[in-house]
Amino acid sequence: MATQSTPKILNLPIGLSATGMRQEFDSIGKVDVPANHYWGAQTQRSLIHFNIGHDKMPKEVYHAYGFVKKAAAIVNTKAGRLPPWKGQLIQQVADEAISGKLDSEFPLYVWQTGSGTQSNMNVNEVISNRCIQLVGGTLGAQEPIHPNDHVNMGQSSNDTFPTAMHIAAYKMATEKTIPALKRLRDALDAKSKQWANIVKIGRTHLEDATPLTVGQEWSGYVGALDDSIANVEYVTEGLLQVAMGGTAVGTGLNSPVGFGDAVAAELSQLTGFAIKTATNKFTAQGTLDRMVRAHAGLKGAAVSLYKIANDMRWLGSGPRTGLMEMTFPSNEPGSSIMPGKVNPTQAEAMLMVCIEIMGSDVAVQMGGSEGNFELNAFRPIIINNYLHSALIMADMCDHFREFMVEGAVVNEAQLKSNIDRSVMMVTALSPVIGYDKASVISHYAIDHNLTLKQAALANGVDEALFDRVVVPINMTKPGSADVPAKS
Amino acid sequence: MATQSTPKILNLPIGLSATGMRQEFDSIGKVDVPANHYWGAQTQRSLIHFNIGHDKMPKEVYHAYGFVKKAAAIVNTKAGRLPPWKGQLIQQVADEAISGKLDSEFPLYVWQTGSGTQSNMNVNEVISNRCIQLVGGTLGAQEPIHPNDHVNMGQSSNDTFPTAMHIAAYKMATEKTIPALKRLRDALDAKSKQWANIVKIGRTHLEDATPLTVGQEWSGYVGALDDSIANVEYVTEGLLQVAMGGTAVGTGLNSPVGFGDAVAAELSQLTGFAIKTATNKFTAQGTLDRMVRAHAGLKGAAVSLYKIANDMRWLGSGPRTGLMEMTFPSNEPGSSIMPGKVNPTQAEAMLMVCIEIMGSDVAVQMGGSEGNFELNAFRPIIINNYLHSALIMADMCDHFREFMVEGAVVNEAQLKSNIDRSVMMVTALSPVIGYDKASVISHYAIDHNLTLKQAALANGVDEALFDRVVVPINMTKPGSADVPAKS
Amino acid sequence: MATQSTPKILNLPIGLSATGMRQEFDSIGKVDVPANHYWGAQTQRSLIHFNIGHDKMPKEVYHAYGFVKKAAAIVNTKAGRLPPWKGQLIQQVADEAISGKLDSEFPLYVWQTGSGTQSNMNVNEVISNRCIQLVGGTLGAQEPIHPNDHVNMGQSSNDTFPTAMHIAAYKMATEKTIPALKRLRDALDAKSKQWANIVKIGRTHLEDATPLTVGQEWSGYVGALDDSIANVEYVTEGLLQVAMGGTAVGTGLNSPVGFGDAVAAELSQLTGFAIKTATNKFTAQGTLDRMVRAHAGLKGAAVSLYKIANDMRWLGSGPRTGLMEMTFPSNEPGSSIMPGKVNPTQAEAMLMVCIEIMGSDVAVQMGGSEGNFELNAFRPIIINNYLHSALIMADMCDHFREFMVEGAVVNEAQLKSNIDRSVMMVTALSPVIGYDKASVISHYAIDHNLTLKQAALANGVDEALFDRVVVPINMTKPGSADVPAKS
Amino acid sequence: MATQSTPKILNLPIGLSATGMRQEFDSIGKVDVPANHYWGAQTQRSLIHFNIGHDKMPKEVYHAYGFVKKAAAIVNTKAGRLPPWKGQLIQQVADEAISGKLDSEFPLYVWQTGSGTQSNMNVNEVISNRCIQLVGGTLGAQEPIHPNDHVNMGQSSNDTFPTAMHIAAYKMATEKTIPALKRLRDALDAKSKQWANIVKIGRTHLEDATPLTVGQEWSGYVGALDDSIANVEYVTEGLLQVAMGGTAVGTGLNSPVGFGDAVAAELSQLTGFAIKTATNKFTAQGTLDRMVRAHAGLKGAAVSLYKIANDMRWLGSGPRTGLMEMTFPSNEPGSSIMPGKVNPTQAEAMLMVCIEIMGSDVAVQMGGSEGNFELNAFRPIIINNYLHSALIMADMCDHFREFMVEGAVVNEAQLKSNIDRSVMMVTALSPVIGYDKASVISHYAIDHNLTLKQAALANGVDEALFDRVVVPINMTKPGSADVPAKS
Repeated sequence: MATQSTPKILNLPIGLSATGMRQEFDSIGKVDVPANHYWGAQTQRSLIHFNIGHDKMPKEVYHAYGFVKKAAAIVNTKAGRLPPWKGQLIQQVADEAISGKLDSEFPLYVWQTGSGTQSNMNVNEVISNRCIQLVGGTLGAQEPIHPNDHVNMGQSSNDTFPTAMHIAAYKMATEKTIPALKRLRDALDAKSKQWANIVKIGRTHLEDATPLTVGQEWSGYVGALDDSIANVEYVTEGLLQVAMGGTAVGTGLNSPVGFGDAVAAELSQLTGFAIKTATNKFTAQGTLDRMVRAHAGLKGAAVSLYKIANDMRWLGSGPRTGLMEMTFPSNEPGSSIMPGKVNPTQAEAMLMVCIEIMGSDVAVQMGGSEGNFELNAFRPIIINNYLHSALIMADMCDHFREFMVEGAVVNEAQLKSNIDRSVMMVTALSPVIGYDKASVISHYAIDHNLTLKQAALANGVDEALFDRVVVPINMTKPGSADVPAKS
Repeated sequence: MATQSTPKILNLPIGLSATGMRQEFDSIGKVDVPANHYWGAQTQRSLIHFNIGHDKMPKEVYHAYGFVKKAAAIVNTKAGRLPPWKGQLIQQVADEAISGKLDSEFPLYVWQTGSGTQSNMNVNEVISNRCIQLVGGTLGAQEPIHPNDHVNMGQSSNDTFPTAMHIAAYKMATEKTIPALKRLRDALDAKSKQWANIVKIGRTHLEDATPLTVGQEWSGYVGALDDSIANVEYVTEGLLQVAMGGTAVGTGLNSPVGFGDAVAAELSQLTGFAIKTATNKFTAQGTLDRMVRAHAGLKGAAVSLYKIANDMRWLGSGPRTGLMEMTFPSNEPGSSIMPGKVNPTQAEAMLMVCIEIMGSDVAVQMGGSEGNFELNAFRPIIINNYLHSALIMADMCDHFREFMVEGAVVNEAQLKSNIDRSVMMVTALSPVIGYDKASVISHYAIDHNLTLKQAALANGVDEALFDRVVVPINMTKPGSADVPAKS
Repeated sequence: MATQSTPKILNLPIGLSATGMRQEFDSIGKVDVPANHYWGAQTQRSLIHFNIGHDKMPKEVYHAYGFVKKAAAIVNTKAGRLPPWKGQLIQQVADEAISGKLDSEFPLYVWQTGSGTQSNMNVNEVISNRCIQLVGGTLGAQEPIHPNDHVNMGQSSNDTFPTAMHIAAYKMATEKTIPALKRLRDALDAKSKQWANIVKIGRTHLEDATPLTVGQEWSGYVGALDDSIANVEYVTEGLLQVAMGGTAVGTGLNSPVGFGDAVAAELSQLTGFAIKTATNKFTAQGTLDRMVRAHAGLKGAAVSLYKIANDMRWLGSGPRTGLMEMTFPSNEPGSSIMPGKVNPTQAEAMLMVCIEIMGSDVAVQMGGSEGNFELNAFRPIIINNYLHSALIMADMCDHFREFMVEGAVVNEAQLKSNIDRSVMMVTALSPVIGYDKASVISHYAIDHNLTLKQAALANGVDEALFDRVVVPINMTKPGSADVPAKS
Repeated sequence: MATQSTPKILNLPIGLSATGMRQEFDSIGKVDVPANHYWGAQTQRSLIHFNIGHDKMPKEVYHAYGFVKKAAAIVNTKAGRLPPWKGQLIQQVADEAISGKLDSEFPLYVWQTGSGTQSNMNVNEVISNRCIQLVGGTLGAQEPIHPNDHVNMGQSSNDTFPTAMHIAAYKMATEKTIPALKRLRDALDAKSKQWANIVKIGRTHLEDATPLTVGQEWSGYVGALDDSIANVEYVTEGLLQVAMGGTAVGTGLNSPVGFGDAVAAELSQLTGFAIKTATNKFTAQGTLDRMVRAHAGLKGAAVSLYKIANDMRWLGSGPRTGLMEMTFPSNEPGSSIMPGKVNPTQAEAMLMVCIEIMGSDVAVQMGGSEGNFELNAFRPIIINNYLHSALIMADMCDHFREFMVEGAVVNEAQLKSNIDRSVMMVTALSPVIGYDKASVISHYAIDHNLTLKQAALANGVDEALFDRVVVPINMTKPGSADVPAKS
């Protein structure tokens, strides 16, 4: 093998023009594969044994695998374990995988072996055959680039698959999910500032409470997202530790000393992410705990988003018999039978997305808990759920922001009317006249259908006192209450 | 309109050869849609506002909607509300939807309005335009077949969408899921009978226990599936009640008296399912409880399947250092680094599928609980999760059966060796010599590394008694124990 | 042993006056137990090794165990395996367990062995020692009534514990949960009938929709509970199959032929429940699937109840700035700071109870799926969650009914005002003038702040037509719409 | 009131000797309460309206409330809003609450108002009446210390209850849960180091894999706990932000400027925790996101613990027909029917505890997502689940450590035998002879029932090569593989 001369690398575009079937082999035997695809025997076996439903392993996993194979080839070459031309060739094809140009060659299903081995072998086979094509070799010959001996050199599915999971998840979270959360947060913040001085009646237990400004209310949404984003960022950072170098069971068998560190360094270089080798490879391969925590971070954000979207659809309820505090854009007709109906559809979609993510969190926690010995074999379900959650959260935040939040309008007349009618303003009187007397006034207003002021005066409150104390805007901050006369 | 003469129905294949964009309109205004598609303004608006992730409304919903639109057209025609040629035309196009030939015209996402209105309008628009094409009209003109006034006549998304949900779910469950569960059940039953007399050591708490036959063990799997299937069938029957006739809020406004019953009768005729109008339309539209229960049935089956698949992968563990009681087919190489490795991949995929379904059950229960007033607006997430769960369970059961169960082989030598070594056979002695003395013997055997018989004899048990009582095959049924000497 | 003469049974009340500690033993050795308690060595060991948190095995399990031990003693006596006086004595003490008089003797925690063996032994030990007390014997001597050889004769924890689980769960469900659900259902039904003719605006997507009567809306709640109750009853019936007779691993080892059937017959007699021996004992002991399904039934009811309680708190929101359609009883002051505040606290408690049950359903499904081989060792968590869910649902339904539903009052003025202001009445015009024109009118009303009639007339609708078609009460049923002029 | 002279504080022990009932009142009216209890009208109303199941609000909440009331009294006194003697008196009684001496006075249920108002009023009433007792006043007179005007001064349930939640949760997590997790981690670490050089066969997919040391395997458990503990600590820190100062809706109405900061400073002083006022009070009261994240941290640790306990029970399975790699302490007899049986009961209890926590996480996420407007009214369910999870995790970790981990013994003979029989050692040959040839050898060994060496030699591998490369201990680290001859 050392005597192989360096072949010429042909300049061939991706694609196989052959028709019919081609014979490939693996350690079990021969398999016919479609001649117009690069994949080999093990991929084909998986297609036969696991064509279950419609769920395909996400493309992002294969893009991440491109980085893994490239980094390993670089390190193997530097270590003298791969001839430079072989390393170079594998890198070149790995770049094609990274770019998405080989996506059609990765057809496997989510419901496969729990280690992701079939997807790793899919990558190994495709890179092998594409390399063979590029040197004018015979597809399926497994030489001069062998799927296991060269593309998988110093690796196992057991360390490469969780590495690819972490990279794919980190990339999705940092490039899509977190930015979309921040854009939504900023849009809410802009509205909060815009409405900083518009007073409205607060609600606790859905019931009328003391006033606050619309800006304050929406600042609560901003605060919730600030916290959620910080948490998502924290748990996402945990994904920067990767299993590479652990090989089969975490010991690093068949990899050279320092392989994990070296590959992590190359991965950092290639991805721009601060990837490090996992502190403990047995943890990194025997568990998926960092993925579980990363998804729990998304779940936490979903909890915040649910509350925000739910508030909004209620605040906008109407147009004549709801709360009618806000108006949101009419993006589409709302009903096939009721003409002119407008519904809070973006909020509804957001609520469903949040629920989907919360349900996925249960699947992820169950899969995460079921690792046995040196391998957690619930990887495909976990990466599929993670990437799904991260993607729909990202897209949903952008749509919700653009089509609901940014066009939100406050119905000031309605807010003013609510303030005028509310009786919970009585709270401002409580420190002055005592809780018990204030209660009497409040109930009196409701029972006699009076305004609060009418009720207060009817119960002996001095009008000057009332006018001084019961000032809605003053009630939206501390320090406004009269010094209690009573204590 | 009543003066419209009956137009000639052209014999045109499905398809639009136009390129570029076509203008469509709805009550909000005009929208450009791709000229090579039948859909209209509301579909296009939804594509713009809700292109979130990759989750598309399942095709099965649209096939079911074909039945709904056809049945409504039949009833509206009979009632004299639609001219016969219009009713006939809508029926003809509805048949195209039922058959799947219009699938490419239903591009909407799961994450849309919670009522499914956008998918209903998608169907209405596509049928409208396809009808218009067939009479040589102008696409987008909304006449002579109007998406709302004719295709949606006497209907609302609020009653048609849950009707389509129930039909799609019922069809999937009865045509795919339940049959696949039964096939798996039968395959397990065949194995159970085949191995009826092979004795093995039972295990409780994972620890050695008293013996049973392999057939008995597997009969437990059969029993679990029998029960689960019965439950799935029961909850699936609940889907035969449909909301049609409730229209906007359950009252039946804008539908003629008896519409719900008449449509249900037509749906029964068309589908062959015993569909009935819902007892209470307010329940049928304000909740999705029957869907929640139907999914809980799938979850229950997933619980059973999880246990079965988990047992199998453990029983087959080895090949040299596991339990090694069974051997399963080697469908593919198991490892990219460990040559010759065989893994229980079908069982792993089954475990993941079961976990996915259990996670979905949480999403379904949350969505189900969140209905407000006259509409539960979490329909898309629920039907998507239901159909997903039902499909992957069906496919997985078939693969698990074919590639794992049917090729299962019992390692009799290993079972015999286990029986010979076990000490839990001591239990048969317990009624005769008492629990306390039997315990002494058991511990003695373990502590001194003896066989049970050696330990029993060393502790004064008569050899004849031992040989009469400690007979593995006799221990696999009641009535074999000696009448206790002691009481 | 057969030569033991029948001792005199003393008439001693329950209770031990001894102080300090008493020595007990089991197969592992001696243990000191509190002298004023009946329990023995294994109970004491469990108290030491498993005093985890505050969760105790529910008393209902021990009451059910009383039935199990009594039935087994009866059958063992009839079969001549127990001398009549021993059988009688065990029965007598079992009755004390059934009645709850021995509750203080069952101190074990939920978090114990997964089979429930420690609770079974707790029962065996307590019955043994109480029997010994009643014949004037020496506590801890384990004779003449031995905890294993006599109290546990023909039994194992593996078949008795799931039997006790089923009985305890069935009893709770049929005596508490289902009756409470039915009482709530009936209270809702009474309100539904009372308000059969009060028209209100319906809401879909929280937005104004077409009218219905309050009675119709509440009939939807009744329908939801009818369905949920039927489902709970169905899955609860599944608990009537019991594992008794399976002994250690389902084979019935050490039990006489027919033991399972005979014990089931006695249990039916004793409990009044139609208990049958399980069709397949390996299923009955290797899974907890019937418990999983039974809890899923409760979960399904929780989903219905959540929607109902949630609707109510929104309908009652106010008193000045909410929906204000209903008023519920003021059971308590609502706020420590806001005088006169009234909150929908019963609804909030109901929502929390429902969520608790939905969370428990996840624990139950996980525990249910994790059975291994001949034993599902997640029994304590499942029975504890089941009984907890069933109890809080029962109590909550009663409180919600009594303190919220029964005192509910409709605010007719508000409903009338809503009807007057709504524009969704336009839907009745749609069949006559077409969806598109109706949409124009609806939007016109909103944009120009007009009543629907003003907007309709301004858009050319004939006043006579309007007055004939737009009649709220007519819109609450099918058949009221004008025959469409257009088609 | 300002003219009240400072009364003498009596030195009276806690306790009321009165019998029968005492009349108390609140803003709704008069209520009879048990004369031997301090609580007032609102507590009694809650007992009547909410006696649901057996779940009581955890005592830890009331101890935390003691801190809240004390800190508020200090700040109110400093601010001149409370006369010093009143502030002092409230502080004194708050100390009694903190110490647990008033526990019997806090009888309320979890299922109550969603804001926790009833528990806040319970605290206010008890402190009021105990203060009144201490100055020789009339119980129920609400003076000179009024439950609302004085004990609740500047506060609302809406800010005090979440503050008490955070303090109670932080205290439990930092004083119980985290230390117990660390003790378990350290015990595992000690075992890992003890067994650093004992080689065993690894397992992936439950199937034989390449070797590692027992110490390496257990280091994976340590690594998992290290990560989980770090995460629990991180999310627990989030609880140090408290809502105090937000009062009714987050605005701080009726509190003086700076009240939130001042109370936080006092709380830090009193508790020793670095408590800060919440950055955004609207977030702090309108959501429970920090509690949701804190519980998700516990859930993450439960995922890790599940894997660890599950591994252990499998490793210890036997004694004759399982994996038999480890022996764990025999804490109790394992079976009521099978003499001498020993089961992994601590592991089973741990698995159940983990599942319970995972189920609770679903309840917490649902409750967390359901906040509306200015208040998340699902507080009682969330604090109850949090404290329950944190406590059972703490206790379970200690028991699992003491009764399972610390007494674990490695069965070296079994491990050696496994190594000798395994064929997965072939992996070490793979880099030298290639994956394909190594596969042939592996399959050959299994098919012909040979040792790996026999199979390797039979397939032409040089014995010297085999002996140099296939050295189990060398296979437990990287760098041991021969430089591949082939590339």
